[in-house]
Amino acid sequence: MPKQVDHRERRESIAQALWKIVDQRGWARATMREVAREAEVSLGQLQHYFSSRAEMLTFAMEFASQHTQQRVARVLTSLNQPPHPRDVLRVVLTELLPLRSDARATSRMNAAYVLEAMHDPALQRQIGVGLRDGRAMIERLIRQARSVGQIPPDRDPMIETDLILALTGFATLLELGVVEPQAVLDAIDEHLDRLFRPAS
Amino acid sequence: MPKQVDHRERRESIAQALWKIVDQRGWARATMREVAREAEVSLGQLQHYFSSRAEMLTFAMEFASQHTQQRVARVLTSLNQPPHPRDVLRVVLTELLPLRSDARATSRMNAAYVLEAMHDPALQRQIGVGLRDGRAMIERLIRQARSVGQIPPDRDPMIETDLILALTGFATLLELGVVEPQAVLDAIDEHLDRLFRPAS
Repeated sequence: MPKQVDHRERRESIAQALWKIVDQRGWARATMREVAREAEVSLGQLQHYFSSRAEMLTFAMEFASQHTQQRVARVLTSLNQPPHPRDVLRVVLTELLPLRSDARATSRMNAAYVLEAMHDPALQRQIGVGLRDGRAMIERLIRQARSVGQIPPDRDPMIETDLILALTGFATLLELGVVEPQAVLDAIDEHLDRLFRPAS
Repeated sequence: MPKQVDHRERRESIAQALWKIVDQRGWARATMREVAREAEVSLGQLQHYFSSRAEMLTFAMEFASQHTQQRVARVLTSLNQPPHPRDVLRVVLTELLPLRSDARATSRMNAAYVLEAMHDPALQRQIGVGLRDGRAMIERLIRQARSVGQIPPDRDPMIETDLILALTGFATLLELGVVEPQAVLDAIDEHLDRLFRPAS
């Protein structure tokens, strides 16, 4: 196996060990030492792949984002082509929320990273770029749907984009058991039904 | 001053030192030692007021919730009496979000506590009780407004309550600079305008 591929694979398996710790035991336990133990490598080997905890976290976070994107892409491929924008938004929202175990691990990873980023300008820049890209993608989708009459013309694309993004707030409510998964799906469907309501 | 009052005041001033650290430097820095330094007490004195970090965090979180409730109550008192339910919901939402420095400190305290609670059943029970109380309060308000025709009868009170709660998801987007405070206020107003739209 080429060296580059092997290096990447080792980093990915270490990132997965980190997710597992964050998911099952929490962010505070995700030290270099604990991750090395979970990944079944020595601390020295771990440091060969990641020179610092920040570097490991950043890689694990990017890898988690890729996983989320791949889950979204896989579900979208299974829909009628081209998928209706309402279905695209529904898939994006439900894959971002901790509704299933694989999405739960990436969602927890994300929550921890956000908290860390509040006090780390470099992390904040990085996560900010990703979120603004996601925001721009949703806004394009809404503008496009509005231009072809799938969304009423009196809806403001900026505001609608922000209201869609805010629905990711269900992640915390789900984690704390304040709302049930089915209630979240019902609320998302109701919100999207109103957005894509024919002009009256 | 009675001993009980003094004890309470010391705990509150320690809680404020903790908030300050969480707000300015992050959750990870909020060790007993750092809090003692910030509160200008010795570590031994701190341990006299809080026997563990968990106890200190729990008190600081409850104190933060009380502060939020007091801010909400203060703004509500300044409105026409009785306040319109739309205004009540707007005040609750805007005081929960990190739109001003005092709300930012309590919002950051909350985010950190939520992350900690995901892996601590005792904390999770406690924060869950508070959130379910808040949820019940909002649902009562929506049901009441619906019964007097301020909200159209075809709106489902459970779903509307969950959609209001989800708007607290703007906290993260504000913290990371993905949305501006004015855009959040516009989105909240738009959402509330639609909820309180006269039946057509």
